[in-house]
Amino acid sequence: MNLSEAFKKTNRQLSGQGKRTVQVLKEALMNVDSETESDYYGTGQVIEDFQNKLARYLGKEAAVFFPSGTMAQPIALRIWCDQKGVKKIAYHPLSHLEIHEEDGPKELHHLEPILLADKSRVIELEDVLAMDPDVACLLLELPQREIGGQLPSYETLEKISAYCRRKGIKLQLDGARLLEILPYYQKTAVEVCGLFDSVYVSFYKGIGGLAGAILAGDKDFVEKSKVWKRRHGGDLISLYPYIISADYYFDQRVTKMGSYYEGAKELASYFNKCQGIQTLPLEPVSNMFHVHIALPKETVEAMFVDIYEKTGIGMTGRLNEVTATSCYFEVSVGDQFSLIQKEELQQLFDFVDKSLRDKME
Amino acid sequence: MNLSEAFKKTNRQLSGQGKRTVQVLKEALMNVDSETESDYYGTGQVIEDFQNKLARYLGKEAAVFFPSGTMAQPIALRIWCDQKGVKKIAYHPLSHLEIHEEDGPKELHHLEPILLADKSRVIELEDVLAMDPDVACLLLELPQREIGGQLPSYETLEKISAYCRRKGIKLQLDGARLLEILPYYQKTAVEVCGLFDSVYVSFYKGIGGLAGAILAGDKDFVEKSKVWKRRHGGDLISLYPYIISADYYFDQRVTKMGSYYEGAKELASYFNKCQGIQTLPLEPVSNMFHVHIALPKETVEAMFVDIYEKTGIGMTGRLNEVTATSCYFEVSVGDQFSLIQKEELQQLFDFVDKSLRDKME
Repeated sequence: MNLSEAFKKTNRQLSGQGKRTVQVLKEALMNVDSETESDYYGTGQVIEDFQNKLARYLGKEAAVFFPSGTMAQPIALRIWCDQKGVKKIAYHPLSHLEIHEEDGPKELHHLEPILLADKSRVIELEDVLAMDPDVACLLLELPQREIGGQLPSYETLEKISAYCRRKGIKLQLDGARLLEILPYYQKTAVEVCGLFDSVYVSFYKGIGGLAGAILAGDKDFVEKSKVWKRRHGGDLISLYPYIISADYYFDQRVTKMGSYYEGAKELASYFNKCQGIQTLPLEPVSNMFHVHIALPKETVEAMFVDIYEKTGIGMTGRLNEVTATSCYFEVSVGDQFSLIQKEELQQLFDFVDKSLRDKME
Repeated sequence: MNLSEAFKKTNRQLSGQGKRTVQVLKEALMNVDSETESDYYGTGQVIEDFQNKLARYLGKEAAVFFPSGTMAQPIALRIWCDQKGVKKIAYHPLSHLEIHEEDGPKELHHLEPILLADKSRVIELEDVLAMDPDVACLLLELPQREIGGQLPSYETLEKISAYCRRKGIKLQLDGARLLEILPYYQKTAVEVCGLFDSVYVSFYKGIGGLAGAILAGDKDFVEKSKVWKRRHGGDLISLYPYIISADYYFDQRVTKMGSYYEGAKELASYFNKCQGIQTLPLEPVSNMFHVHIALPKETVEAMFVDIYEKTGIGMTGRLNEVTATSCYFEVSVGDQFSLIQKEELQQLFDFVDKSLRDKME
């Protein structure tokens, strides 16, 4: 059996909000009146109410629901580029826009990204100060997912924000995991978003919804984004399956981000006690982190399949190779983690540690 | 009360598949196992099975599910343009791409449309023969929605197809309402699609699903379209709410298109017996037609509100002004029409005819 199959057979997982089955949608629909009217090409109560709710939550004038962040973020950057009359924007070399979107931002919007910092660390004030000030927009991803969910200090954010405002550089927040960082910063969404001109948040990371995103900013920005949403083919006649589930799981989980963060720190410490394992960051600053293992991917795969079968607990369905002798996987703590008893957790990590020691001898 | 509100209060409608409420989704989910796994960024059984089913139904090598036709069609044209190394494409001046997409095809893909025929009629062979043969792709919308759903003859289609093949011009079918025209042509979907290189069909017109589209063609074309789907932000982690409902209502209604077509002809004849009304086309060639009324929009609105209140039957929620003294609305026959008894229908049209005569005196 391969790792992905073995993972699917586990009945509990360290990460996430549970399996992505049709039940996730059915549960969200359960208490919705069947006679509720669909949204209609971006209008109607179901979409407008949710947009207003999120605009308030984020402290922005207006918000618009998008099918995906992959659609919303290049549009945000394009709007700021058009306003300044340049194509240059800046983001991290491991930004979603750079590595996961098939070059959509370049192919469709001809954006010219300047890559700040290097792949191993977050963007710091010095990177921004040294950047060509003629960029239209700087995009910051908080936390920086591809390096385990790292964050700059809040003071750094404030300084970057103040500098960008002074220089007429718009600041876009890639807040796919915005809610997940609030406990570490000890700030509200309004406070963090107040540093940015425009903000994207996702509903299927920590929130655990089906799909969908919100893009928020001032009214003019949001109105323009609706035109681009139609151009992209995202102004669907009905988006309510995503909106209803986003709203349902937002209400259910917005207050749980603190416990996810605490869970991530606890879980990371279990991992860090194992032979040959180190988490990135060493102490998480959100609900997520990466688990780096000093063994070849294939070795760890076989080992994990065995552990899943023995414990019924899944750690990951996918390992990423770093070098021929090391690999990593991502952990995002959600509701699932709290379902695992302490003794089971200890037993799991006893297994993991022992298996690693056996392999490393 | 305005027309839209009055229409929503009617308990039966001449057009359509019923009100677009959350019940439409709930019904489609009813018999789906809760443990069914979500699709995952374009992979997984729920999406692959449906894509394969539709590829077979349309007689194409492969198919891909899109959130919308507004996303799928410019992508199809872009692929054919890239293959030929030109930006020129051709379509009708009232094509969806020209009038309903905020210039997305031009703004995102820099397509250079050549408009064939004039706004009052469909594209004929002569238009194609006279066209710059250096276009990459000709898009034909069957039926031509904005002129009441008109169609060229099937022989014309065959000749256009043969000509385009000879000249190396790709032919894209805007088949948003493909199923709806098969009874008139007396052809299968495979036969019609065989004339085209690539095909788009929609699932929320005659099929009455939530949203979503299929784009079909050869394997290479479909693989390229998946890359563009991601670039557009349409490669969602979960598209299953649309896929499950598309599949459910497709099965339920694919065999009903003949009765919708017969219903449309019957209904059009009722309208055409009324003073000051003429349908376009005079005899429908699909389930749809336009109803043109020789009275000012405001006059007809007030009249219709009154008729809806008296009969409980809605004819339309929206009138479109043609001139200061004429207006029209669209009718698409679906399941709703069959719920109205003959006597009620006769009573409704007695009302309509009498009201029109009163106004026109």
